[in-house]
Amino acid sequence: MEVYFDNAATTRCEKRAAELMQRILLEDYGNPSSLHKKGMEAEAHMKTAASQLARILKVAEKELIFTSGGTESNNLALIGTALANRRAGKHIITTAIEHASVYNPLIFLEEQGFEVTYLPVDHAGVLSLEALEQAVRDDTILVSMMHVNNEIGTIEPVEQAAELIHEKNPGTLIHVDAIQSFGKLRIYPRRMGIDLLSASGHKIHGPKGVGFLYVKERTKIKPFIYGGGQQKNMRSGTENVAGVAALGAAAETIYESFDEKIACLYELRAYFAKKLQALEGVTLNGASGEKSAPHIVSAAFAGIRAEVLLHALEGRGIYVSTGSACSSNHPAISGTLRAIGVKRELLDATVRFSMSVESTREEADYVIGQLAELLPQLRRFRRR
Amino acid sequence: MEVYFDNAATTRCEKRAAELMQRILLEDYGNPSSLHKKGMEAEAHMKTAASQLARILKVAEKELIFTSGGTESNNLALIGTALANRRAGKHIITTAIEHASVYNPLIFLEEQGFEVTYLPVDHAGVLSLEALEQAVRDDTILVSMMHVNNEIGTIEPVEQAAELIHEKNPGTLIHVDAIQSFGKLRIYPRRMGIDLLSASGHKIHGPKGVGFLYVKERTKIKPFIYGGGQQKNMRSGTENVAGVAALGAAAETIYESFDEKIACLYELRAYFAKKLQALEGVTLNGASGEKSAPHIVSAAFAGIRAEVLLHALEGRGIYVSTGSACSSNHPAISGTLRAIGVKRELLDATVRFSMSVESTREEADYVIGQLAELLPQLRRFRRR
Repeated sequence: MEVYFDNAATTRCEKRAAELMQRILLEDYGNPSSLHKKGMEAEAHMKTAASQLARILKVAEKELIFTSGGTESNNLALIGTALANRRAGKHIITTAIEHASVYNPLIFLEEQGFEVTYLPVDHAGVLSLEALEQAVRDDTILVSMMHVNNEIGTIEPVEQAAELIHEKNPGTLIHVDAIQSFGKLRIYPRRMGIDLLSASGHKIHGPKGVGFLYVKERTKIKPFIYGGGQQKNMRSGTENVAGVAALGAAAETIYESFDEKIACLYELRAYFAKKLQALEGVTLNGASGEKSAPHIVSAAFAGIRAEVLLHALEGRGIYVSTGSACSSNHPAISGTLRAIGVKRELLDATVRFSMSVESTREEADYVIGQLAELLPQLRRFRRR
Repeated sequence: MEVYFDNAATTRCEKRAAELMQRILLEDYGNPSSLHKKGMEAEAHMKTAASQLARILKVAEKELIFTSGGTESNNLALIGTALANRRAGKHIITTAIEHASVYNPLIFLEEQGFEVTYLPVDHAGVLSLEALEQAVRDDTILVSMMHVNNEIGTIEPVEQAAELIHEKNPGTLIHVDAIQSFGKLRIYPRRMGIDLLSASGHKIHGPKGVGFLYVKERTKIKPFIYGGGQQKNMRSGTENVAGVAALGAAAETIYESFDEKIACLYELRAYFAKKLQALEGVTLNGASGEKSAPHIVSAAFAGIRAEVLLHALEGRGIYVSTGSACSSNHPAISGTLRAIGVKRELLDATVRFSMSVESTREEADYVIGQLAELLPQLRRFRRR
């Protein structure tokens, strides 16, 4: 049996999206900037994707900028708004558990004279709203926070945070990295008070190399990639038409019968988490139930190195990730597991299982069965 | 009959590349950063593409950075080297006929305090080597020039320019925008003295949304997109594995039996240009024979607005571009046609025909036949 439980890293492209891409690459291959029919065909695919996404997010099509993926979306959101709003202030707030594609643009901005405050989180990985409230200042131009943590799955209180921030400083922009939540939760940026929102295609069964940034109308933002003025000058470069179309199609698919799908996924997560916790020496990280995203389970296996377990599982056809991914040298950034206070000896013993709407109970059972066999073996053979 | 003569705008993806993409999207969909087998499969596709391109360019695989396309490659080359070398100087040289994806990053750099010199070209669009020699200074950190002009097809004397620049200032970096020349000419960056070279997938029958930047070993360059540290930290973001693999495959295909293919294309271009010139009131722009790239023919049609002709041709199933594409407000940048001294009344009368190795003599004949019919009609009906 083969079980792909690494869907938070990337997902298989769904067939309909992949076939649409193929058709565009071979037939509707025009350049959207071209004035003739082949250009119009390509432009129409861009518009379809924008309208699919706009409908899902309840935003206007013109508020969407297509990018090369989540990382570029985060770079554009952070660097683009910081450079455009530097006269209003140079203070930015973020949390201690963001992804590298938020941290590293912020470190670049620190080099450019911006000041960044890193907020702590509690043991479940939830941002401290008190700390946030204290941190917002008159010169705070931007708060960037993730919606769902990529390592442990915890959902952040984005809506309350936005309300609180705007009470203290109505001019502060709010950027949400929704790369792990888009396609897993319903997201309505307007209702939630979000000014900028990043998402990625390949986390939702779309292709790699494409994503989008939602930018609320009238938000001051500077382009990040300069050139031929495509996408109303906000993102130059010939549009990745096939990729964008596939992103739209994949988003539409995932948000079809969404509530049932996600309820099933939550059920599967709860089932898997319960069986996992019943194994000896296993501790789960993050929040449980609907305080977590439906697809991520982070678990520490006492006495076993995560990489060893990963490869042992790989030998049984099971694909997962090791838990911690912090490679930053920045003193304020400790990585999610450290930030939530995971014990030192468990940091390197943590594995992330991440499911998708295509995952099944049989797969979960298989993984549990293999773990039940492997864990005692690996503990017996480990070096002391 | 349908004739796509707009291959300088974008090309149809070749079947082998599109099928490879499809297979990767549906089967080898892992994340190259993942430590397990699905990650390795994806990583192997990246390596294959890098080795295909390295072989073609005679460079090392590690000297290639994959990007989201030619525009990002140019942005990374210009902004990345300027910011990394600002201590050595703030002077940059370019020409009056570059693409917007070179100009607009340069304008951004001017805002950051860099000084840019724009060099003139002659009536065929060839860069003045004398002007270049005079322009190179001790504080010139970068010269950026295109290899083949996108509007008129003229080949620039990159190799002589590089020699001349390095004689005057061995520390000056040389960036070549090869977006229109890659797949049309043989390019060996090392032999030609090039430090950085941009190329794009969708101009060579690969997909849109992917390109590369060649960066010579030990060249000082700052990353442009920050995040998870992919591609040795030079370009963060989950790699567009399917796109990169298809780019490699498309490049391999185009450089197979290359000399014959390109000789045929030159023959077709000469055939088409000759017939075109024989029509009444037609003037060709740019260089002829092997001083031009094999795929681009720029022609002015006296008394006819290019857009009108474009749509008339579209009505006959023929797809072309209007000739001039300059939307810059920068005083030093006039657009290629102005820079080569095209008469005022012909600026808006210029059409670009661009062929590919798949184009045929029958297609050329069909275009000429339709033009012979259309030109007198359009001249008769135009407003005076």
